[in-house]
Order: sequence, then structure tokens, then C-alpha cells
Amino acid sequence: MEKLLKLRALMKEKGIDAYVIPSGDAHNSEYVAEYWQSRAWISGFVGSSGTVVVTQQEAGLWTDGRYFIQAAKELKGSGVELFKMEVPGVPSYQEFLVDKLPSGGKLGFDGRVIPVKEFNKISEALKDKKITYAYNEDLIGYIWADRPALPTALAFEHEPRFAGKSVAEKIADVRKEMSKLGVTSYLVVALDDIAWLLNIRGNDVSYMPVVYAYALITENEANVFIDRNKLGGLASKLMAQGVTFHDYDSVACFLGKLPTAGRLLFNPVNTSVMLSEALPEALEAKQDLLVDPLALLKAVKSEVELKNSRNAYIKESIVLVRFLKWISEHTDISSITEGAVVRYLTALRLEQPDIMSDSFSTIAAYGANAALSHYHPEGEGDSLKPEGFLLVDTGGQYYDGTTDTTRTIALGPITDEMKRNFTLVLKGHIAIARAVFPQGTTGAQLDTLARVPLWEYGLNFLHGTGHGIGYCLGVHEGPQRLSSAGTEVAFEPGMLLSNEPAFYVEGDYGIRTENIIEVVKCDKTAHGEFYGFESLIYCPIDTGSIDVSLLSDVEIDYLNDYHRRTYELISPYLTEVEADWLYAATCPVMAGDID
Amino acid sequence: MEKLLKLRALMKEKGIDAYVIPSGDAHNSEYVAEYWQSRAWISGFVGSSGTVVVTQQEAGLWTDGRYFIQAAKELKGSGVELFKMEVPGVPSYQEFLVDKLPSGGKLGFDGRVIPVKEFNKISEALKDKKITYAYNEDLIGYIWADRPALPTALAFEHEPRFAGKSVAEKIADVRKEMSKLGVTSYLVVALDDIAWLLNIRGNDVSYMPVVYAYALITENEANVFIDRNKLGGLASKLMAQGVTFHDYDSVACFLGKLPTAGRLLFNPVNTSVMLSEALPEALEAKQDLLVDPLALLKAVKSEVELKNSRNAYIKESIVLVRFLKWISEHTDISSITEGAVVRYLTALRLEQPDIMSDSFSTIAAYGANAALSHYHPEGEGDSLKPEGFLLVDTGGQYYDGTTDTTRTIALGPITDEMKRNFTLVLKGHIAIARAVFPQGTTGAQLDTLARVPLWEYGLNFLHGTGHGIGYCLGVHEGPQRLSSAGTEVAFEPGMLLSNEPAFYVEGDYGIRTENIIEVVKCDKTAHGEFYGFESLIYCPIDTGSIDVSLLSDVEIDYLNDYHRRTYELISPYLTEVEADWLYAATCPVMAGDID
Repeated sequence: MEKLLKLRALMKEKGIDAYVIPSGDAHNSEYVAEYWQSRAWISGFVGSSGTVVVTQQEAGLWTDGRYFIQAAKELKGSGVELFKMEVPGVPSYQEFLVDKLPSGGKLGFDGRVIPVKEFNKISEALKDKKITYAYNEDLIGYIWADRPALPTALAFEHEPRFAGKSVAEKIADVRKEMSKLGVTSYLVVALDDIAWLLNIRGNDVSYMPVVYAYALITENEANVFIDRNKLGGLASKLMAQGVTFHDYDSVACFLGKLPTAGRLLFNPVNTSVMLSEALPEALEAKQDLLVDPLALLKAVKSEVELKNSRNAYIKESIVLVRFLKWISEHTDISSITEGAVVRYLTALRLEQPDIMSDSFSTIAAYGANAALSHYHPEGEGDSLKPEGFLLVDTGGQYYDGTTDTTRTIALGPITDEMKRNFTLVLKGHIAIARAVFPQGTTGAQLDTLARVPLWEYGLNFLHGTGHGIGYCLGVHEGPQRLSSAGTEVAFEPGMLLSNEPAFYVEGDYGIRTENIIEVVKCDKTAHGEFYGFESLIYCPIDTGSIDVSLLSDVEIDYLNDYHRRTYELISPYLTEVEADWLYAATCPVMAGDID
Repeated sequence: MEKLLKLRALMKEKGIDAYVIPSGDAHNSEYVAEYWQSRAWISGFVGSSGTVVVTQQEAGLWTDGRYFIQAAKELKGSGVELFKMEVPGVPSYQEFLVDKLPSGGKLGFDGRVIPVKEFNKISEALKDKKITYAYNEDLIGYIWADRPALPTALAFEHEPRFAGKSVAEKIADVRKEMSKLGVTSYLVVALDDIAWLLNIRGNDVSYMPVVYAYALITENEANVFIDRNKLGGLASKLMAQGVTFHDYDSVACFLGKLPTAGRLLFNPVNTSVMLSEALPEALEAKQDLLVDPLALLKAVKSEVELKNSRNAYIKESIVLVRFLKWISEHTDISSITEGAVVRYLTALRLEQPDIMSDSFSTIAAYGANAALSHYHPEGEGDSLKPEGFLLVDTGGQYYDGTTDTTRTIALGPITDEMKRNFTLVLKGHIAIARAVFPQGTTGAQLDTLARVPLWEYGLNFLHGTGHGIGYCLGVHEGPQRLSSAGTEVAFEPGMLLSNEPAFYVEGDYGIRTENIIEVVKCDKTAHGEFYGFESLIYCPIDTGSIDVSLLSDVEIDYLNDYHRRTYELISPYLTEVEADWLYAATCPVMAGDID
């Protein structure tokens, strides 16, 4: 509340009627360095996605269905009110601004962290109100006394055996896409795109091994804007591949001097309004792209990347099997906390070769905590009990792949309703896993399959069914996704996706079953080319929580086959005792099973 | 070919480099009066959808997957080449124009039949080529010597017991929508929208009981542009409800004199470029609507409309049962032609009360003919044989509802593959019929369910799964639809849709199973309001063509329940002999059936 008062005093001083604080950094990254976490600092809400708007009278946080429960908790005492996005009757923050801003008023924000697309939405909504925009007002910077500095961590090479393609080859691929789109220069802002393009990895943010940088690819140059101290000897190696280096802070100035004869491509989703304002007025800019070409190049994994990813997922499967064995055999479950689960998983993962870190903060959520779909235990979190569900969503950054898996396991008795709902989620998961679909199919077309079993019982989950995933990069990566909104990108062989239908009962329990799946070629018939999915992770699903009577024969066959392959693939890496446990955990279920 | 030569000579004379001939009339209607059928006249292709483009060197017809086979046949000898829409590598007609038109060239068309949206696509594609547009060149009018006149048929009232709401009430509803959208006038161009709004029906085109007219609703006026000779005494009745009449041809002139202070709503999908060009330059026009508000009002059927429709579908079910009995018991199937099937269905329908006509040209397609998804027998068509599939897609215009049903029946032995594919189509049909889905769900989300069983075998069908349907109006009606492209409109209770998955093998056979379904409320839970579907038609599905081993228990239950209700609902209206036949035709299938 005190922070809000300071902000409002500053706003008054500067004549700013409303101030917007989004989640992102200057690259619209998912994980942002501490320096950029203004929204969390002012509101207390630490979820990955949300926007705060402050006026003299009111302050609101807008976030989506994943975070409704968590945000309501974390906002307490901050003076910031929760606005539930996409709930009927709740205004968007743009509508809120239309309502609250006086005509001729002034809207302020830090132009580095408002992407062009977001700014366009704001200014479109406010177009009849004669608003002045204060673009370069980092007000939080004035009042955040102990704000952390920008990161200075060292970067390193993603070795050729992991990266597969050389930087020069990747730049050539990008230039081919530029030529198809008829552009002469291409501003790359997304940190994972840049890391992938340059075969470098870094330590600037948690969980995602990227380095703060920009790139501007032209027909003859590959300009990279970065703190060169982070690169050491790598700089000369990259220069040999055609890269020219500039200071990180010089990008706006460099853009301002671009020759106006060409045509620039940039992605308005992640490029800040600060940069777009820096462009010469006369320069033609193409920003109407449905899909960023570099994101698509990166999304379709190469043979080397796929082979390595499969290996990383074997390692991760071993980690998960060991974890599941540990928890299922623990004699005193009440002595384990959620925090202990997180630590044990990290420890098991660090035993594996070529591991860097966790790929996100592990969700170990017991009981009602799991109904907060993105809950992370603070410190020890709650203690487990010998009843109900434990939901564990966890993953690792291996040099040879990024992993992300969720399992929900019963720690003791569960109700019939919990068992039914666990089974409905599993049916949705299997429907996606078994799907065969023609070339050209999008995630919007398949998303429904994960929901139909729940819908039949009047149930649903309020997030997408799946996201893309990086390769030793972001645990969430576009452009493909399994979501009713995912209409832009058709699935292509080599794309990776999560398959994670779920079900949550607020205040009671949460269920999610998630595997990462690879789009694979299936069959070429007179009716076209058909694709399907192949699981990368092999980790037992809690058969004790299944009501087998709700599964069809094909679903039972799928499950048993998945478990048979899990045992075959993973047991060779296990001790005899571990393999025995896995054998029991992957026993086939039978249609006639008494549940 | 001779027609093309004449057109080219005229184009040369007028300096026109390329000439576009679309399918539509001045209202972008599906069924158009003979006067407007220029595209069919010049190309020979009589399908409902297609565009001809002619240059001095080339002539092309663009049509979609439903018509590839039919168009290839019908274009023979016309000099017009087939361009398959949305097939990779085939240019769109706009791309063709970009390629073929010289810079600074002239493009001609009849501005009455090119809707604004279509014109925008053309001019956007050609924006770099400095093209001149000859808007008002009905060149076909010069060379079509025996062109039919515009229709003069009489219109009649859709009586209150059928219409339910009065014209004054409907106009008030429209004004409410106008106020929500912030517009002061609303140009209504779609003929079925106008017929619905005015509670009139007519005979201007085949199959769809509409009258050529425009309407312009303002805050105080309801102007209707129509040939008043068609109305007789109805005119004064409508005037009493607030309608003012003007000549049909005076609409452009009237629009030209609109006060420029207001804001006009029109739908660029059906409003012609001739009309939009007539508007005062200073008038603000809103044409960016996702969904035409009148179309949406009309799509959500009222209680009266639903009750009546259910009654119409009982009548149609009786017709179909009698037809199926006749054909299944015929002792000499080879003596029946496709044309005889069409005539027999029409005759059975005309025995029913409150029948006007068929709602479209019945598709009675035997064997390979059914692979042409929109085949209509010319004259007698082919003779049937005691083997393979007969596909019958038929419907009626009743004063109390419009019907549309497809059944595929085996006339004798069929192969195992045909049986399997019939069953896969049925599985898709059942998946849609059984679907339960939350408020907000669109057709794009559900369409996939109809395809998954086919996709699993590398099969597919190249048209949408379902369309809306009118109420004593168009057999195809928007805005809702079951299609991967149907993202604009969420389903609402009271909407009607067809559910018609299909499968076609070119040169061999075709399968389609179609019921009209109503969106109904299902269940309100903690997770939202859920909707489902209820079938309107009750007509047996050919159980002899089903491979029961491919059906799940829930699918078998659905089928048996549907057949049980068919017998219960329809048998009271049948003779004892007919009821006995229906009893046998609706016998439950059993999981253990030998197929």
C-alpha cells in the first residue's frame, strides 16, 4: 500500500493520470531478470503473467484463469484489486482505462516494456479520448530503492554436438525466410530466438539459459547488440561466422540510422514501443506477420535436436521414476514437505549427465494447493498426508533438451469423484496422444479432444491443453500450441508440444497429466499426409487412481502400451530394485479390474 | 468456346484486360434467379459456388473441394480451365489476376454482383499494379441473347402462427442491436434476412422462398425497396407495422442521399460494390462486423419457430421412412433410376400438410455419382443396382420449417472397406450428436470430433461438418457452422445446424449421414453453463452397413436410443405395415453382432 502511495505521488507530480505496469522485460520474455520485475514488486503477485494499472483512486491487476486463486491470495494488503481476464462482465484493462482516464488525460509507462502490439491495443481503445502518452517514464525506477542491477552473467557456447547447425547456416536459413517475406532487414528481439540463432546460452535469467541481446539481420550483416563482457573468447568465434557486435544499449540509436530504402521486419508482440519509436519515419516496416519466421525455424527441431532431446527425456524419465519410487515407498509421508519434494527432484536431476538446472520452479502441490494451477511452494510449503492427490510439475534444462512433465499421484485414499475426474483427464490426455491428423491441422482443431471427456460431465479446465517447448531453451515456446486460440500455425513433424489436460476444484484438489510429445509423420494416403504424436517422456501414470470402467478398449490398449514401453526403455538404466518397482508400476490394467 | 470469343471481342472493344464473373446475384444469394446465372451460362459449370476470370489468352474457373470432380466434367468444351481452390500450388483468382494483368491495365465486372469484401480482396491484391476498375460493365448482358428476365412472382405473408413475432417486434429487436453497435442506419441486403424481418415469403428463386428486396432500417424508419406488384394487399399490412416502401431500383439513389451525420452499418460480404460506391463520401460506414446482427437474431430460433420446426421434422421423418421402406422392399431395384428417387421423395413430401416445395434439388446419387458431393441427377440419371451404396440428400420447405437430411443405404452387398468407412462416418456423426460443450464454444472447436475416426485411418472429407439452416428459408444459413473456419460465432441454444460427416472415394462411392440438430441447454455446473445437441429428424440409419465391432459401448447406446426414439415418435403416424417396417429398421444393434 505504501508503494502505491509513492507511485501515486510521483504520478501526480508528473501529471500522469494512469500508469501501466506489465510483466515483461524489454524482450517480452517469460522469465525476466529481477531488475525488470516491477509488477511483482508493486503488487506482490509473482505469477508469470499479469498487468497492473494504477490511477489516483484505483489499482488493478489483470491476470488469466491460471492465476485467479493465486493472485487473490498474493494481492492481499497491496491495495491492488484483482480483475479476472476473460470472465464475462469483467472489463479488460484497456476498457478500464477508457472508463477511468479523463478526456485529454495522460497515460504513462516504461516504453521499454510495452510491446508495440500491446501499445496499439491501448491507443486503439483510447483513440477517442485525446490521450497524451508519456513513453519513457520508468516511475518504478524512482521509488524501488533496492532495485537489482541488470545481469552480468557469462554466456557460453551451445556446442556443435548439441546445436547441430552452425550459426552461419542458421543465419542463411533466416535470410531465406526474409527473402520470401520481401524484407531487407529483420530485428530479432526474443532472447531465445537470439540464443538459438547464435548457438549461445547464458545465465541472465532464472530457468531459461538466455542472454540479454538484440539482433538485426540484414542481407549482408548479422548485427548483435550485447554486453560483450559476457562472451569472452566466444565473440571472435561468432565474428568468424559473420556476426558483428555492438553495445546492448546502442540498438535504438542503430535502428534510428537504418537506410530508409529497405523494408524492416519486426515482431510487434515482443518489440518494444521504445524501439519502434526509434525507427526512421520513412522506413517501411513489416509487422503484420502471423508467425515470426525465426520462431518457426526454431520450433521445427532438427534431426540432431530431436535425437538429443530423446536422450534428455530418457534421463528425465529416470529422474521421475526414482522420484515416484521414493515417494510411493516412503514409510512416513507426513514427514515430507512440498519443499522437500522440490529439492529431491532437483538433486536427482543433478545426478544426470549434461544437466544445467531445473527448467522452471517445480510445482509440488499437495491437496488444495494443486487447484492453483501454477502454485509453487514457498520454502517448505505444506506437509504431505497419506491421503488425496499430490501434483508434481517439473522439468530440467539439459544441454541436450528441455523437459516438462506433470504427474498426479494418490498418496492414500481418494474419493470416487477424484478417481472419476483423474480418469477423465487421462482420457483427454490419451485422445491427444493417439490423435492422427492431416497436414495443415492446427492446435485449435485438436484442443477440443482433450476436453470432451470432461465436458461430458459438465467439467472443464481454464487453460490451454499444450504449449511448445524449447531445446535447452524456454520451457514455453511458440508458435505452435494446443489451444482453441491456436489457429495460426499448422503442426509440422519435429515440433514439440506439451499435452496437459487438467481439472481443478478450488479449495480441494488439482489433477494434471502432462507429457511432452513430438509431431511425427504417420501415413501418406490418397487423402493426404497424416501426422501423429510420439511421447518423449516415459514415466508411469498412477494406475491406482484410474476408474478403468470409464476407459474404452483403445484407451486401455494405449495406456498399457505406454507403460510397456516405459519399462522397456527405462529399466535398463535402473538398479534391479528400481526396475522391480517400475515393473509393478507399469503393470497392465484390465478392462475387468475391480477399481 | 463461342461465348468466350464473343466476350473477348467485347473486352477488346472496351479496353478491358481481364473480366471477373462470380456466382452471385446482387444480394450474394446462394440460389439466384436465372437472370443472374452468368457464370453458369459462360462456363457450363452449374455448381453453387465458383468464379470465372477471362483474359484474352486464358479463362479459369475457381471452385472448392466439393466441386472438383463435377466442375472438371462440366467445363469440358467451354474453353474454361479448372483451378482447384485451396490446393497447394494453385493460385487464387486474385493471384492469377496479379500475374496476368499488365501494370496500368483495366479490370471489368458487373458491380452489382461483386460484394464489397470480394472487391477489397481484388484491389488489395492488385494495389501495386495501378489498375483501373470498370465497375459497371455487365458484358454478359450484351452477349446473352436469350437472358431470362428478373422474376415477378407474387409474395405472401408468413402467417403469425408460423412467424411467431410480429414485424414491428422484429424491427424493434434490430434497432436494439443497432444501438449496441452505435449505428443510426442499417442496410440489409441478404434476401433471407429481409424475408424473416418482414414475415414474408416469395417465389423469386428456386428452393428458397425469398423476394428480391433491400431494407434500410433507421432509428425511425424501415425502408423496404421492392417491386410492390409482388405484395398486393400485404403492402398495407406491412405499412401498418412501420414499413415504408420504395422501388427496388431506387436503393442506390436513396443511399446516395443519406444524411452524413449518422453512421451506417452494412455487411461487406453481401453488399455490392455498386451500392457502397453510391454512398455519400462523408458518411461514416461501419462494415467491420464479425457477425451480421440480423443474421444472428434470425439464427437463434424463437420458441414458436422451434416448436414448429420440430413439427415439420416429424412430417419429414414420415416422408423419409416411407421412402426408405419403398426402396428397401422394392423387388426390382434395377428398374429404379436416380430421377425416380427424386420424384418419389417430392411426391411423398407433397402429401404432407403445409408443404411448399423441396428445399433444394434432391441428391439421389448411386455408386460413383455419390463421390461428387453435390451431384444432382440430370433427368433420369443412372439406374440403381442391387449392390453398393445409394446416397440420398433431400429436404423440404414447409411453412413450419426447412429440412435437410442425408442417408446412405446399401442396396445389396458392400465391401468390408465400405462397411468400415460407413461406420467411421457414423462414429463422427455420433461424436457431434453426443457432444456436450461449455457456453462460448464455436463450430471450429467441435468440427474435429466428426473427423477423428476417419483421420485415424488416414481418411478425411473436404467440406465442413455442418451448416446452419433457416426456418422456411435458406437450407444453408449462417452465421454459425461446424467447420475448422467457424471461429466467429459461439453456439447458442435455439441455433440449428446440420451434422453431416462424410467420406468419398472418387469413381467408386460416397457416404454421408446428416441430421439437423438443435443446440439445447444441458447442464449448469460450477464450471459453467453447458450445451448439447438434440436431433430434429428421426429417420433410421442403415444398421446393415455398420461394422458394430468398431463402435464403442457409448456409441452403440446412442444409436440404439436414437432408433428407439425414432420408432416411438414416428410410428404413431404410420400405417401398421409401415410401422412394422420401421420397427425392424430400428432394431437395436448389439456389441456382439456378427457383421
